[in-house]
Amino acid sequence: MTVTAPLGFRAAGVAAGLKSSGRPDVALVVNDGPDHVAAAVFTSNRVVAAPVVWSRGAVADGVAHAVVLNSGGANACTGVEGFLDAHRTAEQVGASLGVSAGDVLVCSTGLIGDRLRMDLLLPGVVAATTALAPDGGPAAAQAIMTTDSVPKTVQIEGAGWSVGGMAKGAGMLAPGLATMLCVLTTDAVVTAEDADAALRSATATTFDRIDSDGCMSTNDTVILLASGASGVQVSRAALTSAVTEASAVLSRALIADAEGASHDVAVIVVGADSEQAAVAVARAVTRSNLFKAAIFGNDPNWGRIVSAIGTVPVELAAFEADQLDVTVNGVQVCKGGGAYQDRALVDMSAREVHVLIDLHAGDETATVWTNDLTHDYVHENSAYAS
Amino acid sequence: MTVTAPLGFRAAGVAAGLKSSGRPDVALVVNDGPDHVAAAVFTSNRVVAAPVVWSRGAVADGVAHAVVLNSGGANACTGVEGFLDAHRTAEQVGASLGVSAGDVLVCSTGLIGDRLRMDLLLPGVVAATTALAPDGGPAAAQAIMTTDSVPKTVQIEGAGWSVGGMAKGAGMLAPGLATMLCVLTTDAVVTAEDADAALRSATATTFDRIDSDGCMSTNDTVILLASGASGVQVSRAALTSAVTEASAVLSRALIADAEGASHDVAVIVVGADSEQAAVAVARAVTRSNLFKAAIFGNDPNWGRIVSAIGTVPVELAAFEADQLDVTVNGVQVCKGGGAYQDRALVDMSAREVHVLIDLHAGDETATVWTNDLTHDYVHENSAYAS
Repeated sequence: MTVTAPLGFRAAGVAAGLKSSGRPDVALVVNDGPDHVAAAVFTSNRVVAAPVVWSRGAVADGVAHAVVLNSGGANACTGVEGFLDAHRTAEQVGASLGVSAGDVLVCSTGLIGDRLRMDLLLPGVVAATTALAPDGGPAAAQAIMTTDSVPKTVQIEGAGWSVGGMAKGAGMLAPGLATMLCVLTTDAVVTAEDADAALRSATATTFDRIDSDGCMSTNDTVILLASGASGVQVSRAALTSAVTEASAVLSRALIADAEGASHDVAVIVVGADSEQAAVAVARAVTRSNLFKAAIFGNDPNWGRIVSAIGTVPVELAAFEADQLDVTVNGVQVCKGGGAYQDRALVDMSAREVHVLIDLHAGDETATVWTNDLTHDYVHENSAYAS
Repeated sequence: MTVTAPLGFRAAGVAAGLKSSGRPDVALVVNDGPDHVAAAVFTSNRVVAAPVVWSRGAVADGVAHAVVLNSGGANACTGVEGFLDAHRTAEQVGASLGVSAGDVLVCSTGLIGDRLRMDLLLPGVVAATTALAPDGGPAAAQAIMTTDSVPKTVQIEGAGWSVGGMAKGAGMLAPGLATMLCVLTTDAVVTAEDADAALRSATATTFDRIDSDGCMSTNDTVILLASGASGVQVSRAALTSAVTEASAVLSRALIADAEGASHDVAVIVVGADSEQAAVAVARAVTRSNLFKAAIFGNDPNWGRIVSAIGTVPVELAAFEADQLDVTVNGVQVCKGGGAYQDRALVDMSAREVHVLIDLHAGDETATVWTNDLTHDYVHENSAYAS
């Protein structure tokens, strides 16, 4: 499992003291080649953390030798000094590994607005390079956790090659592009162009379609590193398929571990006139606090679903209000925009809830995952920083 | 106070049995003239309740004699039969008052998806016509309450004329246009065109700028009735001013009574390149669950504020991330996109919280009101229907 599953990678996770708990907080993933292909997608938030600014520039040439990640601080809204901190971090990794700082990507996660403790981080980075191991993936996955209750890892097998990955994220999960930190690795032989295309395609239908709480982070980053160590040439289509599968597993794991959630909810829209329309309708539902609170109450409240659907502008999605069908966990509670089967028949006891919406306006479909709105969500997010 | 404050109006509120609590649930407001000018704005939700469909048509000619309102059921997603129920309600009022059903506006509020108990509602309407009184405004304001904890009324005095009003709303408060039921009355002599213009202008900067929970209702209606009974000719500007003031008072009262809220939050954006930009930025903040949960925790978490601001597309609002200033209750916690004054200095003990955002991109400004996200909000909205 995880980022060291494919050939050609080493990783480590160490405790640098950034987290007051003393838990591991610095992760390092190194691509030993022979190839050093890299691609990345970042948050579309206009307020971006310093490591995002750094990594955008560093990955622009499609080459990276390493990714260093820290929890215990987002290094966002930290100004010029914060950018220099990200740069210094990359330089330390580069010096320790004997590679250019410009080939080191940086990711941070934690509270916005505070400078990182560089006096702790830089020695931590050195310790991480010392701890690098071909089986270091699980330790790295541990070190990037913040409010995550479990590490999230994945491994997808190809024919003589594989994709591995790790991700963190348990809150502020909304699609801007990826909504968390994720490093994917592969030992396939691929071009930088194919890596970039595969990653963008994969995130568009996975990380971009999870929306736990509608809140987009300043630090979201998904990175794909390809070592070529398997010696197996892989087509763009095969790479896209495997990277998409890995991304789907990890994004689903993020929703499953969302802060305070008691339900994972798949909002599946069918019968849309375009995929964009299906996404817009699904997103309107997944953004409705009334809907999400009802799910927490195990209430298949279809009135709140159609009310949310109705907020989608006509230019985004074609549908008629009196054509809407809504099925919750197999029970069609709404048909033709009105009450149909008895809502009392709906069993909401399982963690996973499926809301199927038929717009009867075309043949396109999309699924967006979200969580319910719970007391624990309010509790955890009213007490996080203070 | 309330809708019977201006000359030329009678009102009533009675219990028809639609509410299981036995509380008043049918309100009637009658304009005795001599003028019967009317204007109305409705939800922009594409899923609209039957009474909205009826009233849109009935008010199109700028004339109305009465408004009948019921709580205890939204009559939304009830199909053709639901529309006929709204029609029958208007016919009953018309027959009792000796006016055309086409001059009777209908409003409903309550749970979506259930038919109204017409066997209870129609006798209730008859009882309301019998109970009509020149001082019946307070009873009418009581009868439109659902989860409201207090009736909301207003009275604005002009020179020899006045504006009165009542509103209900305590949840599903988000601007689609007005987000609740509201009836405003005036004894001014005005044209239907002026009434319509005044009402649209007023709602655009009041009801459209409250956003308690981001959820737009299917039944939102704001109605203005003008009797001309004062004999005072009033200009469009004077009418707009008074109607705006009345709407501001009532919309502020809705936020103050929002379900489960412990804070009323004014998000004030200044330095925007356009009013629309200021509204877009304010709305991005008022829609952030993380921000709202932080406010509940009395945490002036400016990182969540700038993170929400950053989600506003560049085509909607010009600003640079490193120019953002954020002041919470007088303490400038963020300057130039980074930490500034100590957040511990912020006193969040009062119910009202002021968040001032300076984009440094122009001279335009806008304020949107919202509430915090609380345990009580989750509790009340997870238990409402089931």
